[in-house]
Amino acid sequence: MAAQLSASRPENRILISEVGPRDGLQSIDRIMPLAAKCAWIDAEVAAGVTEVEVGSFVPAKLLPQLADTAEVVAHARTHPGLTVAVLVPNAKGAAAAIAAGAHKLTLPLSASETHSLKNLRRTHAQVLEEAAAIAAMVRDCPAGSRPHFEGSVSTAFGCTLEGIVPQAKVVELAEALMAAGCDEVGLSDTTGYANPAQVQALVRAVHAAIGTDKLTGLHLHNTRGLGLANVIAGLEVGITTFDASLAGLGGCPFAPGASGNIVTEDLVFMLEAMGLDTGIDIAALLKVRDILAAALPGEPLYGFTPDAGLPLGFRQAA
Amino acid sequence: MAAQLSASRPENRILISEVGPRDGLQSIDRIMPLAAKCAWIDAEVAAGVTEVEVGSFVPAKLLPQLADTAEVVAHARTHPGLTVAVLVPNAKGAAAAIAAGAHKLTLPLSASETHSLKNLRRTHAQVLEEAAAIAAMVRDCPAGSRPHFEGSVSTAFGCTLEGIVPQAKVVELAEALMAAGCDEVGLSDTTGYANPAQVQALVRAVHAAIGTDKLTGLHLHNTRGLGLANVIAGLEVGITTFDASLAGLGGCPFAPGASGNIVTEDLVFMLEAMGLDTGIDIAALLKVRDILAAALPGEPLYGFTPDAGLPLGFRQAA
Repeated sequence: MAAQLSASRPENRILISEVGPRDGLQSIDRIMPLAAKCAWIDAEVAAGVTEVEVGSFVPAKLLPQLADTAEVVAHARTHPGLTVAVLVPNAKGAAAAIAAGAHKLTLPLSASETHSLKNLRRTHAQVLEEAAAIAAMVRDCPAGSRPHFEGSVSTAFGCTLEGIVPQAKVVELAEALMAAGCDEVGLSDTTGYANPAQVQALVRAVHAAIGTDKLTGLHLHNTRGLGLANVIAGLEVGITTFDASLAGLGGCPFAPGASGNIVTEDLVFMLEAMGLDTGIDIAALLKVRDILAAALPGEPLYGFTPDAGLPLGFRQAA
Repeated sequence: MAAQLSASRPENRILISEVGPRDGLQSIDRIMPLAAKCAWIDAEVAAGVTEVEVGSFVPAKLLPQLADTAEVVAHARTHPGLTVAVLVPNAKGAAAAIAAGAHKLTLPLSASETHSLKNLRRTHAQVLEEAAAIAAMVRDCPAGSRPHFEGSVSTAFGCTLEGIVPQAKVVELAEALMAAGCDEVGLSDTTGYANPAQVQALVRAVHAAIGTDKLTGLHLHNTRGLGLANVIAGLEVGITTFDASLAGLGGCPFAPGASGNIVTEDLVFMLEAMGLDTGIDIAALLKVRDILAAALPGEPLYGFTPDAGLPLGFRQAA
C-alpha cells in the first residue's frame, strides 16, 4: 500500500506510519486491553492517520501484549482507506496475517547476524528463505486482497552487539530481500545509532542498488536525540514514509528519559511547520494521548510538542 | 573571534559556543558559586571547547546568578585560545565587558518589538542606538584588545507574545545591526519556534542581505524537540557556529521535560558521528556534567547521549 500511496502522492505529501500499537506496546510489560487498542486506532484515523502497524503475528507466549493482533486487524479493517500493517517474524506469522486480512506485512531482517540469531534465532539465509516463502504466499493471494510485502533491514545503522554495521552488508541484504520477492525494503535504526550523514549515505547506496521507488520508508528511534534530525536527512534523499509512535510509547530501555521510536506528535509538528502535508490534524492527534493515559495509567508519555504546546499563530499547511 | 575562526577553519570544522554559564545559569534561581563556574569552564576547555559565553553584564539585581561575570571573565581569560564571550544588554554593559576584557560581546535585539519592550524596555530604534554606541566603543579599543561585536536577532523565528515574526523584519534588523557597526549578526530561536525549512529560508534571506560571512552562527532551543533537526538545516546553508548548553542546564519553562538550549553533549555527538570536527572530546565533555551535578544538586540535567551512552564501536573523527 505504501508504495502505491507514494507513487500517487503529491511531492509535499509525507506518509506517517503509526507503529505505537506494535512497537510501543511490545516494549512495555502491561497489556493494553483490546478495546483501548481499537479506540486508539479509531482516534488516530479520525485525526487523519492513514497507516497503522497494529500488531505482530508472533507467538503469544513471546509477546502476550500483542496476542490479540488478529482481532485488532479485524477492527482496523473497518476503517476505509486505512492501511492496516503488521509485523511478521516468519512465514507462519505471515500466513496468520494474511488470514486476518492485513494490508501490509513487514518482515524484519537484522543486518547484524548476531542480533538476528539472538532475536529471531535465524541466520540471514534462514530469514531470506522465510522472505521467499512469504512472497510466494502473497503472490498466491487473489489480486484484490494481495497484501503489500515489505522487508525491513533492522540494525541497519549499527548494532548494540556487533557495533558498526558495514554499509555494504545492508545494501547486500536489501538486494537479497528484493530478490526474495519483497515489494519494497525499509531501513530501521533499531538501536538509535543513526546520524544524519549516515542516513543520507545509506539511503543513497540502497537506492542505487534497488531503485529509489523500492526504498521509501525509514523506521527511526530517538535514543540519542537525533531522531528528527535523521528525518530531515531522510527527506532530503527522497524518503517519504516515516514510522513513529504516539507519545513515544514504550520508551527506550537504554535511555531512561528517552522515547524509543520518534514521537508521532513531534514528527507531525515538524513536518507541518515545514509546510509538508501529513494529512494529520495535530490538535486532534494530541488529544489521542488521553486514551493512552487512561488505558495505561502511570506509563511515561514522551514528546516535546505536547509539553510545550503549539507555537502562537501556528497554522497547519492543509 | 568567531568570524576569524570561521574564515580560517577547514570546511568540516564546526565551532560550538558553550552558553550554559550564561543562558543556563540565568534560567535557574540558584546561584552557582564562582569556583564552580570556573571549574566548569576549565573542564570544558580541557575537553576542547574553544568558545564559552561566560556571563552577562546586566544589573546584579536583575540577574544575581550572573553578578560575578567580571570575575568569571578574568578567570576564563587565563586560558590561551579560548574566546571569552559575554552578553551585553546595552552600552553600559558593553563598557563593563570591555573593561573586564571579554573577547566577544553579543547584543540581543528582539525581532518582536513587544518582546523587546518587555525584556529590555527598549524599542528597536533604541536598541540600535545602543548598538551604534557599542560599535563606537569597540572601534576605540586598541587593535590588540578590540573585542568582536555580534548583534543577535532574538525571537527571530517567532515570539510567544507576537506569534509569527515576518522574515522581512528579521532581514531588516540584521541589516540595521550591520549598519550600526556590528561585526557579525546571529539568529536566535529564543522561543523554540523554529523549524528546519524556516531556518534555511531565513538564513538564506539574511545571507542575501548582509553576506554569508556576516551570519555564521545560530542560537537554537529544543523546546519542541527540533533543535538538532534545525542544526542540520543550518549546516546545509553554511552555518558553522552553534550555541549549546551543557546538560541543557536551565531547562525550558514552557516544556517541563525539555532542555531550553540544545544540549552540548548531543550536539557534539551528532556532529562528530557525522564526521564533522568540533575539536571536542566527547568522553571528557560527558564527565563535565559531574561538576554541574555537584554544584547544583537536584537540578535536572538533560541530554539523550549522556543517558544512552555512545554507540558500540563509536570513534571520533579527530
